[in-house]
Amino acid sequence: MEPIFFTCGPTQLYPTVVGHMKAGFDSQFFSLSHRGSKVMECYGSAVAGLRTLMSIPADYEVFFISSGTEGMERVIQNCVNATSGHLINGAFSKRWLTTSQQLGKKTEDLTVPDGSVPDISKASFLKSVELICVTHNETSTGAMIQPAAISALHTQYPEALIAVDIVSSAPTVELDFTSTDCVIFSVQKGFGLPAGHGVMVVSPRAMATSAKLSKKISVGTYHSFAELKKYADKSQTPDTPNVLGIYLLSKVVADFNAVGIAKLRAQTTQRAERLYQLISPFVKEKTAQSLTTIVAEVAGGSARVIDALKAQGIMVSSGYGSHKDSQIRIGNFPAHTDSDFERLLATLEKALRRA
Amino acid sequence: MEPIFFTCGPTQLYPTVVGHMKAGFDSQFFSLSHRGSKVMECYGSAVAGLRTLMSIPADYEVFFISSGTEGMERVIQNCVNATSGHLINGAFSKRWLTTSQQLGKKTEDLTVPDGSVPDISKASFLKSVELICVTHNETSTGAMIQPAAISALHTQYPEALIAVDIVSSAPTVELDFTSTDCVIFSVQKGFGLPAGHGVMVVSPRAMATSAKLSKKISVGTYHSFAELKKYADKSQTPDTPNVLGIYLLSKVVADFNAVGIAKLRAQTTQRAERLYQLISPFVKEKTAQSLTTIVAEVAGGSARVIDALKAQGIMVSSGYGSHKDSQIRIGNFPAHTDSDFERLLATLEKALRRA
Repeated sequence: MEPIFFTCGPTQLYPTVVGHMKAGFDSQFFSLSHRGSKVMECYGSAVAGLRTLMSIPADYEVFFISSGTEGMERVIQNCVNATSGHLINGAFSKRWLTTSQQLGKKTEDLTVPDGSVPDISKASFLKSVELICVTHNETSTGAMIQPAAISALHTQYPEALIAVDIVSSAPTVELDFTSTDCVIFSVQKGFGLPAGHGVMVVSPRAMATSAKLSKKISVGTYHSFAELKKYADKSQTPDTPNVLGIYLLSKVVADFNAVGIAKLRAQTTQRAERLYQLISPFVKEKTAQSLTTIVAEVAGGSARVIDALKAQGIMVSSGYGSHKDSQIRIGNFPAHTDSDFERLLATLEKALRRA
Repeated sequence: MEPIFFTCGPTQLYPTVVGHMKAGFDSQFFSLSHRGSKVMECYGSAVAGLRTLMSIPADYEVFFISSGTEGMERVIQNCVNATSGHLINGAFSKRWLTTSQQLGKKTEDLTVPDGSVPDISKASFLKSVELICVTHNETSTGAMIQPAAISALHTQYPEALIAVDIVSSAPTVELDFTSTDCVIFSVQKGFGLPAGHGVMVVSPRAMATSAKLSKKISVGTYHSFAELKKYADKSQTPDTPNVLGIYLLSKVVADFNAVGIAKLRAQTTQRAERLYQLISPFVKEKTAQSLTTIVAEVAGGSARVIDALKAQGIMVSSGYGSHKDSQIRIGNFPAHTDSDFERLLATLEKALRRA
């Protein structure tokens, strides 16, 4: 039986991807110019599809970049002159802080232990903080900040821009984009696509900040907000993009919209609940338990469970960093069919019982 | 009959690409982690293959990035404190200068008209120029600088780093890497691959410059030379890369090596000669006529020729920028089979006769 990937990304491809890829090759789509009408139409359809799927406001820009990591860099470059603030609870939120420091910025942070989420009401960033970076779903620990807390942050710091990493919770996260200014995600997790493409959503307020900032400091080159917008306005990118990635994204987003986001969300939540009933969760606080990255502590060490699952064709991720040997991480994404998921549950139950 | 793309990139896919892609999907390669052994092996094989194919010295780093355009930015960030020098003869060489200015650097340039190449012996950059950027093959005009002239530049400015854009001449360009410090290219032209992946080759001298510079200014974040090297040393990238792009690159480079670079070069040169006999070249100076981007002036306007070719299933590019309506550009790459090429020649001859 073919292995099924419940890894945290790259992960199982959405079932329609192979067919879309074949059709793309058959039509010689990947030989077409990224400045030509067919690729521009495809670009436009991917953006329109994302707006519908994720309720992205019409006045927010949708930019295509190469990865979520690139998004971290571009957001700092375009939104911060002196100081950024960071909510930190794991490796990926920490990385954003490091990115800002590498760009020569000062940083402030509210750091809490792995497996927990920061209490927004306790944040005490200086009023002068220009941007606050939030990792909605910490892929390294499976701790998830409630979208409502992100909105509360926006209310608490009305002068600051709010940037949110939803790399491992898109597209099913129910995020109120109007309380955010920059949102970044990539396609190799919840979208069930091959890796190598990222998306950055930018508010009018962040666009204005970047324009103002660009008069004082460098906000980047081909991927400054202004350059991205100049090309996005004609459904293009400043550079030669991953056309294949954009093509597949346009197709899979259309498939998601045909299913409906409500159904995808309900399915994600129900599956997460069933998984949490089976495992010993690393994240204790119920409301902080990720719906898409379920992290289990495995008393006897994770290697045996990972191997037992693998022997049955079920691939999961090991724990991250220092948790490598004591945890497993399970990706819960729309790409998994009902029967895939039942196979995971049955196999996991046996493997955990034996561990 | 299926169209054949003689466009300047994205262009015709190398004939083996579809089969490689199918095998990749069949083996579920695109669900694998970019930190796991199979993807690392593939990464290693792509790098080793490129070193063999293009005679890249063992002590030069080979980094994977997202595009040639990104390469322009990373080279300036990592190699220039105050001033860069630029040889300019078209839109892409100009873009590199703009990139440097956008990063807040001072620039010097030797600019010559479109369709010609700068005379290196006439370059009079200040001794303080830290980096000189050269566009080996101007995709916008079809003007090619002789690799020997690049080596001469290196001799003339021994203190400066030399960066070379070979986006549209790789892999067949016979470049002496030892007289260069940064070389950038992408895969959607001479490699016959779908767009969305770039390569940057960096000399030990440029690595040292970046390390020294990083103590004074920001040299970037996840794609600084140091970060790229930290991960490249374990056959990984700092970010989640275009794994599919790396996979296809590793396969096609192996195919190229099986044919042999000498044969690919001879074929490219012979085909270019036959094309130049047929057309009215924009680039008059014989030694400056590109082997891979053949640009023809079309007296009666290019649209009719482009349409006539298209009607026969032969796709070529229009002129670039202000030359759009008066020129056509023909990509001459290893992806084209002998029979593709004969079909191009025959069709082009008829179309030009009628124009």
